[in-house]
Amino acid sequence: MNYDQIITSTVKKNNSKIVLLVLDGLGDIRHPDYKNKTPLEYAKTPNLNKLTAHSVVGRSYPILPGITPGSGPGHLGLFGYDPKEIIIGRGVLESVGIGLELESGDVAARCNFATMNSQGIITDRRAGRISTELSENLCSKLQAITNIDGVDIIIRAAEGHRFVTIFRSKNKEIDSLIHDTDPLTEGNSIIPAKGLNPPSEFLASVINKFIQQGIELLKDEQPANTFLMRGISSKPKIASLREKYLLESAAIASYPMYRGIASMLGMKLLPAPSTIQGLFESYVEHKKKYDFFFIHVKGTDQAGEDGDFNSKVNCIETVDKYLPLLLENKPDVLAITGDHSSPCFMRSHSFHPVPTLIHGQYSGVDDVKEFHENACNIGGLGFFESKYLMGLLLANAKRLDKFGA
Amino acid sequence: MNYDQIITSTVKKNNSKIVLLVLDGLGDIRHPDYKNKTPLEYAKTPNLNKLTAHSVVGRSYPILPGITPGSGPGHLGLFGYDPKEIIIGRGVLESVGIGLELESGDVAARCNFATMNSQGIITDRRAGRISTELSENLCSKLQAITNIDGVDIIIRAAEGHRFVTIFRSKNKEIDSLIHDTDPLTEGNSIIPAKGLNPPSEFLASVINKFIQQGIELLKDEQPANTFLMRGISSKPKIASLREKYLLESAAIASYPMYRGIASMLGMKLLPAPSTIQGLFESYVEHKKKYDFFFIHVKGTDQAGEDGDFNSKVNCIETVDKYLPLLLENKPDVLAITGDHSSPCFMRSHSFHPVPTLIHGQYSGVDDVKEFHENACNIGGLGFFESKYLMGLLLANAKRLDKFGA
Repeated sequence: MNYDQIITSTVKKNNSKIVLLVLDGLGDIRHPDYKNKTPLEYAKTPNLNKLTAHSVVGRSYPILPGITPGSGPGHLGLFGYDPKEIIIGRGVLESVGIGLELESGDVAARCNFATMNSQGIITDRRAGRISTELSENLCSKLQAITNIDGVDIIIRAAEGHRFVTIFRSKNKEIDSLIHDTDPLTEGNSIIPAKGLNPPSEFLASVINKFIQQGIELLKDEQPANTFLMRGISSKPKIASLREKYLLESAAIASYPMYRGIASMLGMKLLPAPSTIQGLFESYVEHKKKYDFFFIHVKGTDQAGEDGDFNSKVNCIETVDKYLPLLLENKPDVLAITGDHSSPCFMRSHSFHPVPTLIHGQYSGVDDVKEFHENACNIGGLGFFESKYLMGLLLANAKRLDKFGA
Repeated sequence: MNYDQIITSTVKKNNSKIVLLVLDGLGDIRHPDYKNKTPLEYAKTPNLNKLTAHSVVGRSYPILPGITPGSGPGHLGLFGYDPKEIIIGRGVLESVGIGLELESGDVAARCNFATMNSQGIITDRRAGRISTELSENLCSKLQAITNIDGVDIIIRAAEGHRFVTIFRSKNKEIDSLIHDTDPLTEGNSIIPAKGLNPPSEFLASVINKFIQQGIELLKDEQPANTFLMRGISSKPKIASLREKYLLESAAIASYPMYRGIASMLGMKLLPAPSTIQGLFESYVEHKKKYDFFFIHVKGTDQAGEDGDFNSKVNCIETVDKYLPLLLENKPDVLAITGDHSSPCFMRSHSFHPVPTLIHGQYSGVDDVKEFHENACNIGGLGFFESKYLMGLLLANAKRLDKFGA
């Protein structure tokens, strides 16, 4: 029996409430310009520290040592889905990231407006990075194409020169085993789509017609007279949190990408104001209605990727300031962690294990009194793969029966 | 996707340099006769400690808790090959250990000269542990056998009563699914070779003829008038470090067994003087030419297996003394670890997790200031399987892309 099967065979419902507070990109490394501290060490966090003294902590690996996760795998792990097994393609992620809801069987592609010369050679893969506004106008033109050979075509502008295309087929099976049409370097032509099995061969023929018709519609545009397609992918088949854990779940996340992932896992999307206070208040307002709440704070990751140490510290201190809002409306189990590390010093996602805290009546209490990376090294949770976090939360909530007699 | 596939799908080349310094059998346990310290705790290591204060540390399990690895599995793990999956047979290990280069398809066997009475009963499985010199003479006699049924026979003396035999077949497939011919206890006859599939059945028939012809050649010798064969094994199919990690790699190891393993993984064998200073100088001399350097120090293991605490301390202090040679020619990422523990108190390899250090710009720094076993318990690497070390080194060298969007 594998881990998932043990969870399925022991999980049960009760009246407990679980809150998973995700500070995106929370983990960090000590920064030479800031007293050799991490943002969590540097920040003044009296409420977090008080909580830590009554909690158990550890460090979670989003995937495995050395692997830097994207946001998709990072979040899948937190919700107990093995990010090595369930792959969310880039087209799908970009689509849910701009708020498009995908249906079962849909295939999505990330597209770039690009520039092509009269010989059909790509001279600029990003069409001079045209504005979102211009891109929206061009997408309106492309939206004249609504169906090819029975496959619905849904086009939506994203940021800058990017847009997404969804292929939806009600009658005939389509599949996404199709290489990018993006030649990856300028000076080459668009690579015609080619399917690797019959349902993707059919979709490839649709895609090639779509490209042809699209270029015709864009032929008088400059610089964006063509487009390239990448990350052609199908919506993955994933069990919802209800199916997997018998949880009625809700997401309080303001960024489309995280709303999209939550929605794919069957979470109800609750109002999510852009402030941390607003996120926490939304939880307070809806706390009676759901078993499980995913609250997503984006600021920590943004600051990490920008290399903005002070902004990361500030975001952490704001979370600390409003933490009493959660604690006064305390769930039975509260977890605080990140989906991955985003060290300010690296200005990117990283492979470092993430500080993680679990607080609840049955969590136990270790010797750690402050919530930061190295303090968590000696916590009662040890180092663990984040795919086990949901099992820990369910166990803390007494939602898992004993396994075996 | 498994871990190896994630590495393969994210690995890239850059100009970084990685050094993996392996102190063989480094790990130890506290010794009652030496102030209850481990050799690492007992040794004076100012340079190592200074480095530790700017590094991240942890403890690596060569295989899994409780498992004591041989040198083969221990090193395979360090290079990121799962030692539970890739088995290097003893015949192969002994062969590369005495510097024989194996070709694809070769089958190797460890052999012992032994004593047999006139009824064909083995009376001494080690022929009174004859000298290496005598063994070399006897091997010269056996070398009269060069080919049986189209299979080339290559014989080479090893230490004492031991030698190896390589079977190399150019035209007909051979395989090593063949039990030892060694009856394991005196008072029994040689067990005839028996293959378990057609290519090993063929080789078994060759081996039985080889034994017969060999005994005829040795019939007037005393005490070594026969020989026993063990660990009959094929050269495993292993991807090189270049194939697996896009690394141009080199080994600085003076002992044949470690040179052999390195060579099987496609590492270039660099000059490796027998002193620690010499090993480090060889790195300095060649540092520009390769991406990855494996430097192997044998003294720690030898001392551990001899139960010679002072010698292990001395070896560690010598490494510490010359460590500045590495640090002045600092690679982007430096790791220091062992392939397993060899506690002096146990006089053998052991199952204890190994202290491990990673130093680099992006390694992060934990609270550990001294490099020894128990200090490493609270490091930022936690406890991990050593097969993940290479992933960590590649990540630290920024040679791994983000996994998933």
